[in-house]
Amino acid sequence: MISKQELQQQIAEAAREVRATNPMAGSITNTVTINFVANAQIAVGGSAAMVYLPDEGEFLANAGNATYINVGTLLPIYEKTLPRTAKALHDAGKRWVLDPVAIGIGDMRTKLLAQFKDYKPTIIRGNASEIIALANLWGVAGDGGASQVRGVDSTQAVDEARTAAVALARYTQGAVAVSGEVDLVTDGEAVAYSKGGSHFMTKITGSGCSLGGVCAVYATTAQTPFACAMAGVQVYNLAGARAEAQVDAPGSFQVAFLDQLYKATPEDIAANPFDYEEA
Amino acid sequence: MISKQELQQQIAEAAREVRATNPMAGSITNTVTINFVANAQIAVGGSAAMVYLPDEGEFLANAGNATYINVGTLLPIYEKTLPRTAKALHDAGKRWVLDPVAIGIGDMRTKLLAQFKDYKPTIIRGNASEIIALANLWGVAGDGGASQVRGVDSTQAVDEARTAAVALARYTQGAVAVSGEVDLVTDGEAVAYSKGGSHFMTKITGSGCSLGGVCAVYATTAQTPFACAMAGVQVYNLAGARAEAQVDAPGSFQVAFLDQLYKATPEDIAANPFDYEEA
Amino acid sequence: MISKQELQQQIAEAAREVRATNPMAGSITNTVTINFVANAQIAVGGSAAMVYLPDEGEFLANAGNATYINVGTLLPIYEKTLPRTAKALHDAGKRWVLDPVAIGIGDMRTKLLAQFKDYKPTIIRGNASEIIALANLWGVAGDGGASQVRGVDSTQAVDEARTAAVALARYTQGAVAVSGEVDLVTDGEAVAYSKGGSHFMTKITGSGCSLGGVCAVYATTAQTPFACAMAGVQVYNLAGARAEAQVDAPGSFQVAFLDQLYKATPEDIAANPFDYEEA
Repeated sequence: MISKQELQQQIAEAAREVRATNPMAGSITNTVTINFVANAQIAVGGSAAMVYLPDEGEFLANAGNATYINVGTLLPIYEKTLPRTAKALHDAGKRWVLDPVAIGIGDMRTKLLAQFKDYKPTIIRGNASEIIALANLWGVAGDGGASQVRGVDSTQAVDEARTAAVALARYTQGAVAVSGEVDLVTDGEAVAYSKGGSHFMTKITGSGCSLGGVCAVYATTAQTPFACAMAGVQVYNLAGARAEAQVDAPGSFQVAFLDQLYKATPEDIAANPFDYEEA
Repeated sequence: MISKQELQQQIAEAAREVRATNPMAGSITNTVTINFVANAQIAVGGSAAMVYLPDEGEFLANAGNATYINVGTLLPIYEKTLPRTAKALHDAGKRWVLDPVAIGIGDMRTKLLAQFKDYKPTIIRGNASEIIALANLWGVAGDGGASQVRGVDSTQAVDEARTAAVALARYTQGAVAVSGEVDLVTDGEAVAYSKGGSHFMTKITGSGCSLGGVCAVYATTAQTPFACAMAGVQVYNLAGARAEAQVDAPGSFQVAFLDQLYKATPEDIAANPFDYEEA
Repeated sequence: MISKQELQQQIAEAAREVRATNPMAGSITNTVTINFVANAQIAVGGSAAMVYLPDEGEFLANAGNATYINVGTLLPIYEKTLPRTAKALHDAGKRWVLDPVAIGIGDMRTKLLAQFKDYKPTIIRGNASEIIALANLWGVAGDGGASQVRGVDSTQAVDEARTAAVALARYTQGAVAVSGEVDLVTDGEAVAYSKGGSHFMTKITGSGCSLGGVCAVYATTAQTPFACAMAGVQVYNLAGARAEAQVDAPGSFQVAFLDQLYKATPEDIAANPFDYEEA
């Protein structure tokens, strides 16, 4: 595993490259937070484009360096769009970020998430319950433990998902980010615990979804999946903490948070505190 | 009918229970205001989850204590999703909130709203024109008067819908909330007129939809449908008035309004001024 | 061509009429920015209503004086909804605004945009790449030049689309607005270059979509398509410049921008600086 300092340099480099090149990361994502995802992607320096139809998903998959798939609010057409897009990404060797929102609700969601196993997402972003459930669904963790998903919220602590996250990352050879009070990010070899953030991030909708979209923006760069996932998690924890210092309620927080995503420098993002250890 | 003081205690209790238990209220709602609905539900202390597919609607219906159905922007799949979800709610004895947005536009909307008659929503939330039109569609008011719906806006005053609202509440044995400059809430026995709010609530989209979603959050509690509907209407009028005092334009109002939804205490919500009389 | 002063009077008149009559302009628009479109339409004095289904599109087409069609995030049902709505608008002699977002992505988008040629939108609003691509698709510009669409962003300057914009306006006998650092608006006879705005308008999602929706609101008035498109472009440049003066980041900008849309007077909108010349 690389040193913490090397990782920080890669994080800063991912952030710098995004600011310099304004890369597009297309998304297929839920309608609840789609606006917030787009605004967050733009705030960190990326460009957003969202679609629903199969051939449009394939188009975006090939047009960008990385794509974001969030299964939040499934539509009937997703039965075709999501597998075709994931396959196009896989076949073209393109990076993609998966957010397995609300895994366990409904037949199509389970079927789609099972299909994604073959297309190995570069980064998986979820809360503890979702990461455990995905590892169980894919059968990659010997004993991932029981998942307790309630709607879209996690009922479990981040560290309960450590085994599952490491197993998923080893399977995909990518990175996994588990969101919680402290965020866990792993590439299967190292585990980082990123600090900061704000309790207000659970008082608005879309903190998690938009983090997935921002990870996709960083995933367009030449840095490792681990560094790209960390760049997303770090800028979220940094902006969350800075925004919380300015406000006392969630409406204002959302505005201040987008502002701080925009203002965060690559150096600040890399310097946000995190612990770092072997997996 | 219970005393005003008893009603106020129930309103406060509904708000307290929500703050204490963070209950999930699932929604099938329109894409225009879906983000605002979720953020408002979270701001008052609830948890939000939105879906489109039939089996997912049934899942949420059974997973939560109350569900919100808003017919704002119908999709083709709603022809299956909405009746199946409403039936699941009815069969399980679960509470649900109906917002008959834009009743009268299109064949599917009329057909779906007609079907809902059998599944008796616990709370109906609409503007005056929508409430009159729904009472006419269901044939529950001897003379509900003529409804004048124009797109999604009401062209009629709240009191014109009093007869229709009382008749609907008697039919469903639940509560009906009519939104306007003063809000009328009834359980068919008593009528309350809740005051406050802001003219800016008509200068943003989603005041009504998100109120429906918030009523569903309160409807998860052990209080009566009338007290739950009143809790929603009261916190809206309180937060609206407080937000208006801080701003001079609608963009800022929306932010301040979410902040004030978050800050309102159960006591403040119960104490918001309202008139109270027999139906 | 009319004088600049006459044009300014017509712009002010369009804005005045909207403030006085609160006209509804229905929309079929993308889910990414649908909330922002509605809030912007309301902020300038209009009323918003969004639908997806074919008969609902026809209903709105006939219910309002003008309708907005934005092809941003196509759903399968749009294959029926959009042609039927556009045909209803054309047959009833109603005005409508087309935003050819992301033209070139996917088969359905191209097919729908090709069909719209027969239904002649009253106002076309797009970025330079989209306007050039539409003129090429419709074959109305002898040599519109090559379009370079990347996702939803333009890669070309506004003046590169002048020939295409003028040709489109002559074909539709309506107006065309090309968004960029300076905005070009033409009716095929005159060309106006509207100034102001803010670099933050490219740091949020929906500046363009919501401008299309606001143009539809002004298009409900008795003024010419050119004056209505100019009213929209002018209020955007005015509000953008005023909002930028108040903020230093995009989250705050979006709030301040909606506030300034609301505060702009008809006189201010007409007086926003623009150059004006023969086409």
